[in-house]
Formats: sequence, C-alpha cells, structure tokens
Amino acid sequence: MYKVKVYVTLRESVLDPQGVAVQNALHTMEYKEVQEVRIGKYMELTLADTSDVDARVKEMCEKLLANTVIEDYSYEIEEVVSS
Amino acid sequence: MYKVKVYVTLRESVLDPQGVAVQNALHTMEYKEVQEVRIGKYMELTLADTSDVDARVKEMCEKLLANTVIEDYSYEIEEVVSS
Repeated sequence: MYKVKVYVTLRESVLDPQGVAVQNALHTMEYKEVQEVRIGKYMELTLADTSDVDARVKEMCEKLLANTVIEDYSYEIEEVVSS
Repeated sequence: MYKVKVYVTLRESVLDPQGVAVQNALHTMEYKEVQEVRIGKYMELTLADTSDVDARVKEMCEKLLANTVIEDYSYEIEEVVSS
C-alpha cells in the first residue's frame, strides 16, 4: 500500500487572485508582515500495491490532478507496510 | 524573511465529496489501485521578519486559513536568509 502526497500550485507567472484576497484579509487582521500568499491544492491518495507506482502517479498528475498549462505539481510517495 | 507552508485538510470524520469525485474519475481512467483521495489546501506564505513567527502563523491558521470546525491544519516555517 502507498500513501501519496500531491502538491499542486499555480505557476509563478500566473496571477493568484485567491492568494491576493487572503493576503488582503490577513493585512486587515493586522498581520502586516505577510508579503505574499500563494494557494494551491494538497491531495492525499491511498493506493493499493501496484507496479511502477511512480510512473502511474506522474500520469495521474499529468492527466487529471494538475492542469499543467497553468499549474506545477510535485508528489511524495511513501510505502506503507500493512500490519 | 520566512517561507511558510500551510497544509489544510478535512478532518477524517468529514465526508470529502471532492475527493470521491476525483477517485471516481481516476477509476474511470483505469487507475483502479486508487483506494482513497482526500483533497485539501496548500498555501505558501512569504513573511517579513517578525518576532514570535510561530505564534503568529498559528493565529493566522486558527482565525482565517483553516476552518477548525471541520479542518485540521499543519505548517512548516523556514527562515530564508536574504542575500
């Protein structure tokens, strides 16, 4: 079994209106030290044993989990030994 | 300067319809090994130097970045030495 953590973020060149809105809200709440906020998706997948898990996860990211036109993705795969 | 990574996820007890939808889509695309998908938010904050950064970040999470009724949050703070 595998636990996979996927991080999907907007590319640097892409405007992040959601991040700007959160940043403004934090400033309103007196957290003036906040200089930038970028918001993305964090996904936790549980996978049954499978061969070539890395290639499969990369495919899932490329095909569905990330919009590679405007987003970057990274992932961490952790094998979980079922007791 | 600090780079802060915040992870906000739904509590285990809370149904994740978005995660179920993604899981079904992956199954349709023949990724049958996917047993569960949980979707959350991933935020990158850039903070100017500030005292007690950990307490401030915790406050931001509690007050705005996470809905602590249905979400859990965790964060990592990395000090960035400006060149």
